[in-house]
Amino acid sequence: MRPNRLKQQWLAGAVTLNGWLHIPSTWSAEIMAHAGWDSVTVDMQHGLHSMETAIQMLQAVSTTATVPLARVNWNEPGAVMRLLDGGAYGIICPMIEDRAACEAFVRACRYPPQGYRSLGPTRARLYAGDDYAEHANDEILTIAMVETPHAIAQVDAIASVPTLDAIFVGSGDLRLFLQSETPDDVEARLDAALDAVLAACQRHNRVAGIFTTQAAQAQRMIARGFRFITISTDSTLLHDAARDVVSALR
Amino acid sequence: MRPNRLKQQWLAGAVTLNGWLHIPSTWSAEIMAHAGWDSVTVDMQHGLHSMETAIQMLQAVSTTATVPLARVNWNEPGAVMRLLDGGAYGIICPMIEDRAACEAFVRACRYPPQGYRSLGPTRARLYAGDDYAEHANDEILTIAMVETPHAIAQVDAIASVPTLDAIFVGSGDLRLFLQSETPDDVEARLDAALDAVLAACQRHNRVAGIFTTQAAQAQRMIARGFRFITISTDSTLLHDAARDVVSALR
Amino acid sequence: MRPNRLKQQWLAGAVTLNGWLHIPSTWSAEIMAHAGWDSVTVDMQHGLHSMETAIQMLQAVSTTATVPLARVNWNEPGAVMRLLDGGAYGIICPMIEDRAACEAFVRACRYPPQGYRSLGPTRARLYAGDDYAEHANDEILTIAMVETPHAIAQVDAIASVPTLDAIFVGSGDLRLFLQSETPDDVEARLDAALDAVLAACQRHNRVAGIFTTQAAQAQRMIARGFRFITISTDSTLLHDAARDVVSALR
Amino acid sequence: MRPNRLKQQWLAGAVTLNGWLHIPSTWSAEIMAHAGWDSVTVDMQHGLHSMETAIQMLQAVSTTATVPLARVNWNEPGAVMRLLDGGAYGIICPMIEDRAACEAFVRACRYPPQGYRSLGPTRARLYAGDDYAEHANDEILTIAMVETPHAIAQVDAIASVPTLDAIFVGSGDLRLFLQSETPDDVEARLDAALDAVLAACQRHNRVAGIFTTQAAQAQRMIARGFRFITISTDSTLLHDAARDVVSALR
Amino acid sequence: MRPNRLKQQWLAGAVTLNGWLHIPSTWSAEIMAHAGWDSVTVDMQHGLHSMETAIQMLQAVSTTATVPLARVNWNEPGAVMRLLDGGAYGIICPMIEDRAACEAFVRACRYPPQGYRSLGPTRARLYAGDDYAEHANDEILTIAMVETPHAIAQVDAIASVPTLDAIFVGSGDLRLFLQSETPDDVEARLDAALDAVLAACQRHNRVAGIFTTQAAQAQRMIARGFRFITISTDSTLLHDAARDVVSALR
Amino acid sequence: MRPNRLKQQWLAGAVTLNGWLHIPSTWSAEIMAHAGWDSVTVDMQHGLHSMETAIQMLQAVSTTATVPLARVNWNEPGAVMRLLDGGAYGIICPMIEDRAACEAFVRACRYPPQGYRSLGPTRARLYAGDDYAEHANDEILTIAMVETPHAIAQVDAIASVPTLDAIFVGSGDLRLFLQSETPDDVEARLDAALDAVLAACQRHNRVAGIFTTQAAQAQRMIARGFRFITISTDSTLLHDAARDVVSALR
Repeated sequence: MRPNRLKQQWLAGAVTLNGWLHIPSTWSAEIMAHAGWDSVTVDMQHGLHSMETAIQMLQAVSTTATVPLARVNWNEPGAVMRLLDGGAYGIICPMIEDRAACEAFVRACRYPPQGYRSLGPTRARLYAGDDYAEHANDEILTIAMVETPHAIAQVDAIASVPTLDAIFVGSGDLRLFLQSETPDDVEARLDAALDAVLAACQRHNRVAGIFTTQAAQAQRMIARGFRFITISTDSTLLHDAARDVVSALR
Repeated sequence: MRPNRLKQQWLAGAVTLNGWLHIPSTWSAEIMAHAGWDSVTVDMQHGLHSMETAIQMLQAVSTTATVPLARVNWNEPGAVMRLLDGGAYGIICPMIEDRAACEAFVRACRYPPQGYRSLGPTRARLYAGDDYAEHANDEILTIAMVETPHAIAQVDAIASVPTLDAIFVGSGDLRLFLQSETPDDVEARLDAALDAVLAACQRHNRVAGIFTTQAAQAQRMIARGFRFITISTDSTLLHDAARDVVSALR
Repeated sequence: MRPNRLKQQWLAGAVTLNGWLHIPSTWSAEIMAHAGWDSVTVDMQHGLHSMETAIQMLQAVSTTATVPLARVNWNEPGAVMRLLDGGAYGIICPMIEDRAACEAFVRACRYPPQGYRSLGPTRARLYAGDDYAEHANDEILTIAMVETPHAIAQVDAIASVPTLDAIFVGSGDLRLFLQSETPDDVEARLDAALDAVLAACQRHNRVAGIFTTQAAQAQRMIARGFRFITISTDSTLLHDAARDVVSALR
Repeated sequence: MRPNRLKQQWLAGAVTLNGWLHIPSTWSAEIMAHAGWDSVTVDMQHGLHSMETAIQMLQAVSTTATVPLARVNWNEPGAVMRLLDGGAYGIICPMIEDRAACEAFVRACRYPPQGYRSLGPTRARLYAGDDYAEHANDEILTIAMVETPHAIAQVDAIASVPTLDAIFVGSGDLRLFLQSETPDDVEARLDAALDAVLAACQRHNRVAGIFTTQAAQAQRMIARGFRFITISTDSTLLHDAARDVVSALR
Repeated sequence: MRPNRLKQQWLAGAVTLNGWLHIPSTWSAEIMAHAGWDSVTVDMQHGLHSMETAIQMLQAVSTTATVPLARVNWNEPGAVMRLLDGGAYGIICPMIEDRAACEAFVRACRYPPQGYRSLGPTRARLYAGDDYAEHANDEILTIAMVETPHAIAQVDAIASVPTLDAIFVGSGDLRLFLQSETPDDVEARLDAALDAVLAACQRHNRVAGIFTTQAAQAQRMIARGFRFITISTDSTLLHDAARDVVSALR
Repeated sequence: MRPNRLKQQWLAGAVTLNGWLHIPSTWSAEIMAHAGWDSVTVDMQHGLHSMETAIQMLQAVSTTATVPLARVNWNEPGAVMRLLDGGAYGIICPMIEDRAACEAFVRACRYPPQGYRSLGPTRARLYAGDDYAEHANDEILTIAMVETPHAIAQVDAIASVPTLDAIFVGSGDLRLFLQSETPDDVEARLDAALDAVLAACQRHNRVAGIFTTQAAQAQRMIARGFRFITISTDSTLLHDAARDVVSALR
């Protein structure tokens, strides 16, 4: 089976950079896969693609050595399994609130006996090799998102789920939920939440990841110990780059 | 944030007309958006589009001032949130059977603290404005469908869910369910059900809506107090118009 | 080979009704194919579909006994041949100005020795039968459009091209060209042009056809001797039907 | 309503052959529908299509007399109903583990009073006839997959669900689950499982079906009493045929 | 008819900025249309879209006040007319080599008597208004590209074609052709070519435009008198923005 | 620039096998690219894809080391250039009848000074490397089809066109044209035509290629000296494989 380079980098202790795909196009996906990211993620939650286009984008990413990941829309085993069959080498699942939800997610990514993933790796076998089904449980990455105060309170239990690979902080949602509790000390409480995530990851030997919107924020998060770093999205990169060119000429 | 004209019309006490989109095409969607409806609904339940096409149809509707709505296939938060992120200004949810289901639906449409909608209004922000996330809870319409005897029995509890905007009667399903209980007095029982919906809406200050198949039926429903009126679908309008032309010439 | 019902009807002297497809959707195509037309035409000139969708629409039409036709964008052999390979049972070619153009068009539709159509009826063979290549020259309809004063002046020469089946009047363009010459007596000159077409068709034993926008106009044209009658388009039928429903309720 | 030929064949005691569609293309679907299968199944679980393409493939299959079936991704009523509205004449549901799951599945396929299917057979009515809603409960096939040791233990209860038509063995998953329990005697335990399925089907008068990968295996399963036989997939047939041609020439 | 804002700006003597669309996606098109450009061009020559997607992108641009333009692949009247019918408010035609080619192009964009554009503005009428056909000849922009030494030699004759609106320099191709003649003095000869274009435009009252790859180059061209300025493409903006973020973090 | 493996094999004197893609799907394209062919050709003439899907299929092929080729629909420079910009490493052009046509084709594939290909290798640069434009004239393969008696008579002149790489015999069309002249001695005249092609190729140092329908025919052609061998199509391979499985079980 084609080894998972992202997993290898994580095992080697590296910080990895992840691109984020919202534009439903195989061409923008291929462009992003050529931009130097270690991995790129087809985002089915806030992106605009159907499952069919998402899989075509996984194909486009596979023209390079960049690792193809996908985020599911919701913790649904059907969607998880289709993206894996389509060749995703890791799944990010949003809104994991507790251990049970995390277990349901991770087990959907694993063939028995570790889980209940259904056998039929249509495209994955072509991309990864004929021995895909034998090794997939070892190579496929499972990445649980924590993005609410409740999830932060449960993060140690979440991180303890067997064969989970990483915890990924949905920093936008988390800040919004913290703000909605009370507008006081949002940044401090957010900092504390990130510390809790980092501690749980260290305890259970998981990689800590986070969504950031800019390089400067990404740098601070790397300094704190996050190692799976998403920066912005294709949509925002395109919009801001175009707006900057136009502004420069007005 | 771009104001929701449909909500404004409802607040002003107006009757509004809603077109229904089953054809998976941005072109038929743009045609319908130019036909004079106050709003049009991309129907993911009985329509033939994927999520990707549904969002492209919301784009096509946005070339006009007609308000873009969407019906989800089922009460699933993932689908609700994607359509909202895609720029729908209101969500219709089928088969709401009781208060808990209605709450789960409405809360999926609301950012915290009112709900648990995930932050990431990819296209909605472009369509609505940069302050979308601040005002979306006030502008986005939530419309619960009641279409079974059980739902009618629970309609007052359903209508009481905070921030729900409207109750929409699935008249086809409701008649079918009533008929399946017993073939006696179907029309009378259907009338009683509509009265129950109207009463619940009045008590809780919700707009009452209904699906109708023809203008004459629509007129009767307006006379009874329904204010969110769907008439036929694009598929049926096209089929009947073509058939009538052909018949006229045979 | 599956016989061409439209050709059979023409041979029997019947008037036939033809639907016109602008919406790029297999679903609206299937709806139109169920509305009672003798044939429907996928219009690549003023319609909004790519070649790929056009062929999928030919598939959708093939779920019925309605005869699938296509109009090419321009007199280009490549496009003609692709639509035939995709299963169209007749091709309408716009803007035929003289005999040479008509010959180039008709020969692109015919296998040697009658023409230079390339062999490879990918989908046509499945739709029509394994003996498609042997009989296609007899079954496939070729329909040349005349839509300028120049073409009207040449209509007899155009109609004389061997194996041409029909002349189809682009009445919208023809009126526009006549008007652009001089605004005087447009209707009378249009009438004279239609007479010239009908006469040429009678002389060379071709079917005369015409595009009309409404049933009343269609009826007049049938009375004059046109036998291949298009009325309106799917786009216009949908738009007008929706607008009428909305108007009835305002 | 257009009768369900597959159901008729089953009632007549026939063995039926079913093709399996993974390629998201209306063209490959039409090819498969012309290859002699009694039915073909658009597989939304391990196939690569969106719902929109799946329905277009059902259209393509409807150009022939081959019966169109679909497999849903997961036991979700929303997906079941959309495929039925799109014209599928039977639904295969994966991973049915017990009676309750089977009931939820079958009832999603049935209009009241037998179930809770929502009324709105957009395309099904066109394909099947105007009386679709009256007869659908009699014609539409419901096919539950058993593919785990737990499901085998419950197969009699599963088979007892009213109006279920068939039990379909997911032989790949079942073998994988059996192996994951213990590597001993896998084939013998698989054989015992198949016997249990056949016995339950006989007791409750259901058709027994199975997924096979090759003609020889299919023949053995027919000999054992299975009557709904899937062999390979379009992807695998294409891949192996191409590989064999290439090998023959190296 | 909806006025052409780009034409109004040109008449007022303004410099206008034009975005360039290669990604075949309605979403990236809508993003670009929101970035501040005066117009955006769907490029059918080096872009990756079919005609169908190109028209959908014109729809997406129409959600804003940004003017939708399109570049055809080649000087083919069929493609020119389809993009105009799809709602493009101006057409850019590549590789115009002499007056005859320019005339053929411009006349394909004009209804009679100025040209031979076919009547049937399917989507354009919806976007622009019911009086589209009456005013289109005044509002639609025709933009001829000169990109070879031969074209430069003929630029005065090209610019003299009636109702042509602008000359657009394909600077990449022009440099390549100049280099291929001889590697000497390329920049000086390119400068002379630009002077020739500007002089011809001034003499015939046409707007001079040019493709540039960066803001600095664009600024120099504005200073020289070019007033229709394209800068980079969506593909390149996205690629470079992503690469810069990644580089900043390595 | 990524070297063209097919060209390298030809220079080394190897016989190469080419797969043929008619199914408009990135998934079937990826399957074919994994089946062992040296190259695969996206056929825009008798295949069912739009330009957009064709380019996505070139992406899918690029996930492997198989060389991506494309056949254009007709000898049109616009289509030739788009497929090259989309990453095709060689173009096959149908119906080349004489030297002038061959020259027009080959020059459309070459940047100046060898030809007039427009600069803008959108996807090709990503696939091939940043120095694509410098080396493309050396790496891109140009393959002219001869498929009529007239072309055979001109084959030496056709083969003499500078930088042409190969002559490809359209054996189906050629036989059809020969038959249409006279039914006598078709096989002998076909043999003579093949000899003429082989002789012209040897004289001008071009590779001779041919379309075959089966392995046995391919073997005979290899024995005669053809070195670029296409066998069947994806459509036919799929259809025959499915039909054979079904037949084996009836």
